[in-house]
Amino acid sequence: MTTSATPRERLLSAAGELFYRDGMGIGVDALCKAAGVSKKSMYQLFRSKDEVIAESLAGSGPVYEAALLPGPDDRRPPRERILGVFERQDLMAAEGNFLGCPFVSAAVELKDPEHPGSVVARRLKQHLTDFFQAELVAAEAEDPGTLAVQLTIVFDGTSARAVVQAQALAGIGTTTAAALLDAAGVK
Amino acid sequence: MTTSATPRERLLSAAGELFYRDGMGIGVDALCKAAGVSKKSMYQLFRSKDEVIAESLAGSGPVYEAALLPGPDDRRPPRERILGVFERQDLMAAEGNFLGCPFVSAAVELKDPEHPGSVVARRLKQHLTDFFQAELVAAEAEDPGTLAVQLTIVFDGTSARAVVQAQALAGIGTTTAAALLDAAGVK
Repeated sequence: MTTSATPRERLLSAAGELFYRDGMGIGVDALCKAAGVSKKSMYQLFRSKDEVIAESLAGSGPVYEAALLPGPDDRRPPRERILGVFERQDLMAAEGNFLGCPFVSAAVELKDPEHPGSVVARRLKQHLTDFFQAELVAAEAEDPGTLAVQLTIVFDGTSARAVVQAQALAGIGTTTAAALLDAAGVK
Repeated sequence: MTTSATPRERLLSAAGELFYRDGMGIGVDALCKAAGVSKKSMYQLFRSKDEVIAESLAGSGPVYEAALLPGPDDRRPPRERILGVFERQDLMAAEGNFLGCPFVSAAVELKDPEHPGSVVARRLKQHLTDFFQAELVAAEAEDPGTLAVQLTIVFDGTSARAVVQAQALAGIGTTTAAALLDAAGVK
């Protein structure tokens, strides 16, 4: 982190890292200490810890999506672009610090679907489904809406497996997604 | 809970409920208060909160499995017995207090695969995969091991969807599992 980052930026950056690594139970004291910001400053910038959670999740969305989704120069056909997401997930899970999809983890930990963080998590999780759906429409799949949800389910179940089993995925997400694409005739 | 329950039973029962409902961050004070047991008694019965987490998860395993898996009198063919798990999951998720698979939630929240609770969660999650695999062997599926893992992934992704979206699953888990069984020729 550069020293020119504002207290707000430092707080959101520390929050994104700590909430993901240690969970939503991290206290405001630990958060402020990691960010090098006083509690007083934090409460001048954010109404509550809940707001910090929601904003830090919203901020991490584009980073996570950039790591998973094909870039603007990717010209592969829809099926390969979809399977590429699962291949990237496989690589991500192989890294030592993978703790699952940050949006699913946030919703699981917050327990309350109306929590501002859960609302952001739901919106960002939908981005992945929207990406799948747009690709499936381009591939002229018969029921792109349902298949996009099914691929999201495979993605999240694969993430859960990585967390629960704590071992390499060995391509199981890609294989499972490919089986569903095959069954739907998406070539 | 009957008043004849021992302090140990009361602690594990309260722990199972509170950890699932409010998360693993629940403090020892709140836990002991809910169980009507002193902290001193708790630490005479369990070495640590981590041990309470692990034992309460282990205790909830059979209850969760009994709610999901077919009973001993179920004589349906393997495919129906497998899909029945997803139908029951659908009903469970439609209940107001569904917060996902307790074993996945525990692993997600604990963050540490070596935590005693994560070790129990991994073992209990494997039971579901083992059930699928035994049914697939009975159905003479070609690669029962891989397909059992894929069905577990669908199960956990569907659970994640219920938590993140906070809306009825409307049979999407069953449909997705059926698509994989169809693709594998399991009739």
